[in-house]
Amino acid sequence: MDMPPPNPAILARKSELVARLHRALPSDAVISDPAETRVYECDALTAYKCAPMAVVLPGSTQEVAEALRICHEMSVPVVPRGAGTSLAGGALPSADSVILGVARLTEVLETDYENRFIRVQTGRTNLSVTGAVETEGFFYAPDPSSQLACAIAGNIAMNSGGAHCLKYGVTTNNLMGVTMVLMDGTVIELGGAHLDAAGYDLLGLICGSEGQLGVVTEATLRILHKPEGARPVLIGFDSNEVAGHCVSDIIKAGVLPVAIEFMDRPCIRACEAFAGAGYPDCEALLIVEVEGSDAEIDEQLETIIEIARAHDPVELRQSNSAEESARIWLGRKSAFGAMGQINDYMCLDGTIPVSQLPHVLKRIGEMSGEFGLDVANVFHAGDGNMHPLILFDANKPGDLERCEAFGAAILKLCVEVGGCLTGEHGVGIEKRDLMIDQYAPEDLEIQMAVKDVFDPGWLLNPAKVFPLQSSAARRDAAA
Amino acid sequence: MDMPPPNPAILARKSELVARLHRALPSDAVISDPAETRVYECDALTAYKCAPMAVVLPGSTQEVAEALRICHEMSVPVVPRGAGTSLAGGALPSADSVILGVARLTEVLETDYENRFIRVQTGRTNLSVTGAVETEGFFYAPDPSSQLACAIAGNIAMNSGGAHCLKYGVTTNNLMGVTMVLMDGTVIELGGAHLDAAGYDLLGLICGSEGQLGVVTEATLRILHKPEGARPVLIGFDSNEVAGHCVSDIIKAGVLPVAIEFMDRPCIRACEAFAGAGYPDCEALLIVEVEGSDAEIDEQLETIIEIARAHDPVELRQSNSAEESARIWLGRKSAFGAMGQINDYMCLDGTIPVSQLPHVLKRIGEMSGEFGLDVANVFHAGDGNMHPLILFDANKPGDLERCEAFGAAILKLCVEVGGCLTGEHGVGIEKRDLMIDQYAPEDLEIQMAVKDVFDPGWLLNPAKVFPLQSSAARRDAAA
Repeated sequence: MDMPPPNPAILARKSELVARLHRALPSDAVISDPAETRVYECDALTAYKCAPMAVVLPGSTQEVAEALRICHEMSVPVVPRGAGTSLAGGALPSADSVILGVARLTEVLETDYENRFIRVQTGRTNLSVTGAVETEGFFYAPDPSSQLACAIAGNIAMNSGGAHCLKYGVTTNNLMGVTMVLMDGTVIELGGAHLDAAGYDLLGLICGSEGQLGVVTEATLRILHKPEGARPVLIGFDSNEVAGHCVSDIIKAGVLPVAIEFMDRPCIRACEAFAGAGYPDCEALLIVEVEGSDAEIDEQLETIIEIARAHDPVELRQSNSAEESARIWLGRKSAFGAMGQINDYMCLDGTIPVSQLPHVLKRIGEMSGEFGLDVANVFHAGDGNMHPLILFDANKPGDLERCEAFGAAILKLCVEVGGCLTGEHGVGIEKRDLMIDQYAPEDLEIQMAVKDVFDPGWLLNPAKVFPLQSSAARRDAAA
Repeated sequence: MDMPPPNPAILARKSELVARLHRALPSDAVISDPAETRVYECDALTAYKCAPMAVVLPGSTQEVAEALRICHEMSVPVVPRGAGTSLAGGALPSADSVILGVARLTEVLETDYENRFIRVQTGRTNLSVTGAVETEGFFYAPDPSSQLACAIAGNIAMNSGGAHCLKYGVTTNNLMGVTMVLMDGTVIELGGAHLDAAGYDLLGLICGSEGQLGVVTEATLRILHKPEGARPVLIGFDSNEVAGHCVSDIIKAGVLPVAIEFMDRPCIRACEAFAGAGYPDCEALLIVEVEGSDAEIDEQLETIIEIARAHDPVELRQSNSAEESARIWLGRKSAFGAMGQINDYMCLDGTIPVSQLPHVLKRIGEMSGEFGLDVANVFHAGDGNMHPLILFDANKPGDLERCEAFGAAILKLCVEVGGCLTGEHGVGIEKRDLMIDQYAPEDLEIQMAVKDVFDPGWLLNPAKVFPLQSSAARRDAAA
């Protein structure tokens, strides 16, 4: 899954490009020394690395427009980068590209509690958006696991979710407007601090477009009032299937927890060894969290526990204090770190109809034997967003390839049962060749035709999202 | 605000067109007798009327594709029609167009309670979607006032909301997937019964695209578990401004009512005269409804009433029974009927930031004097979706034009204060010339370029949404 070979004609223009960027931007906003550009050679999908030709770090929307205009005039590909936490290679550069990073765009531009929104520059991290409004009792809902590091720009590009999106929705449900720069330097405004938009909903289209349609520099985000409190319950089962049925029954009963997290035995064991959260050694664990006033929490938990009891759980642990709540979450929140200590791993991201959960887990277990690689499952079960972690050894020849083949088989299974290749990580380079399993040729054609509109030269984050042959053909046709 | 003059070259092809449609579709699915096509001469914006050349009423996605393919080959414009309840002229035909009605596509294709969705043909009415799932305790959330009559196809075209969308969102938040036929007869699938979609979110783009990008024949809709109960409270104030502040304070406090409806004095008086709901004669009335279990309702109402009391209400009426609840809603629900009895009226639809409510109401009152026309305000205050009703006399020369000018001035005011031309009715023909007040030329250009992708010939519902000159130029360029 490499990037296409660099275009020598573009590489030959490097010094002219760098000189033009230097003339247009502050001197410290342009990086071209190979020792420094190497910092940008990969994102969180570290299996793939390639240093870009240059890096620009603009300090304003105007500077973003200047940089893009120069690259557009010189036909140089541009890879936008938030905080570089993509697990799908969304910010992986090619050798003939310029990385456009938004890391310097971190300002809060406006907070409006009466109309419940905040306007920020998109290099700001997810968690520091909440940080800017929490003294007034508000928060920004989408909470990807990487929220301490990841930028709003990347959240918008990948339509990120998080553990609590069962109740609050993903980024697209919390995004009200953006300022976006097109590849040719045109600045456009989409949406705003109001419900709906006249004409077409281009804002919805931009959210999740993986930096291929424009560079979003400012975002108006919906902020919500913090609930009075929240409390989780830990439920253990001796069968994935029964745990899956319990999730379905909770959803069917009309309770709306803020989170239903699911861990299977390999994941439970790894988390327990790493964090010592006191998890029982069972087949499947659910963490179900509800929020509201004390009375609301009690009422919801009562319903949930009644449903859980009907499925004969081997563990049912309620939290009676903030400390106990933190302890219940401790293992889950350290799942990725725990896996990283055992092995290299690849974190997948697919979605399935919730009712398919037991079947899909069973098949993943069987495939684990077929491919000879262990897999641990941890996911947002309430909305069917799976994150299987495939363990492999990066130093063992052939292991990465086997891991990728296993991953592809799992994602095809998601599509087969009526699900989707991605939940919140995006397609990036990781899944671009699987798009033909999800979409018919005419469905893909119309997606690519939409890219033609925003970026006729296919310069913006090319070689991602679509099968490599298709995007290459499009780029060649445009050239 | 008329449709452009019909193209004589297209009119000349009528008999050939009708013959081809008859060969491709069942005989009763094609209507061309002027006595019968007249039924389709307008939608709910009855000020404008024009009979189409022919009407087709296909019975399947395949028949929709056949009809579109024929019209595409013969370069005949097609105006899709749901139930014809558009208040913005979204389904107004031109004399040289074919109306494609989905009225026969009313089947429920699949219900899945475990995964919480229903799949329906889009001619089905909004209310009968809920009707198909309510015995299992579920409902479909968006609830436009016209829900007894309006079709899901039109809800998707206009991204319809309703009184309860403050909590549940509008159509786009409850739509999971569609089957759509492009103008050239290609059938595509977007989204599905799962969270998110790989690649671009074209589903979000389609929702609200006013039948200009394709004809949606099937839809997968999110269904929700019915809450245990719901209860409204009626709050009266002697000032619009104070009522506006009360709305802001409720939102700021983090209570999330399912509905906050607002009526001003002219509306209250008309409703009271019509329905006798026992409304007090005050300046502004709020109906705030909350739902959940009895305990949850009590707790939320307590907070709301405390906030209301701090603003010295002249009326504060709680409901203690289903009958009292119905009585509180009675006046509001008959608002449009009440207005129709007094006068002809035009119902506008714009959104504003909630905090601008008092200012906008004051300005509308002043403009009412300037234009010499009465106006009554009734709207979904929680999300700033206004529905001013301008009263006029259709038989008085010049009154309609004055009414339209007044309406345009109100919508421009919405944009000025940071709001938007539409909340849920769409642009249609009504607001197409105001789009330049909302958008910069480059913003409009990119919307039209997106239409180029889906409908290069600009045959699908043309002469709507965009300023007439712009869309005409685009059509001419494509011809």
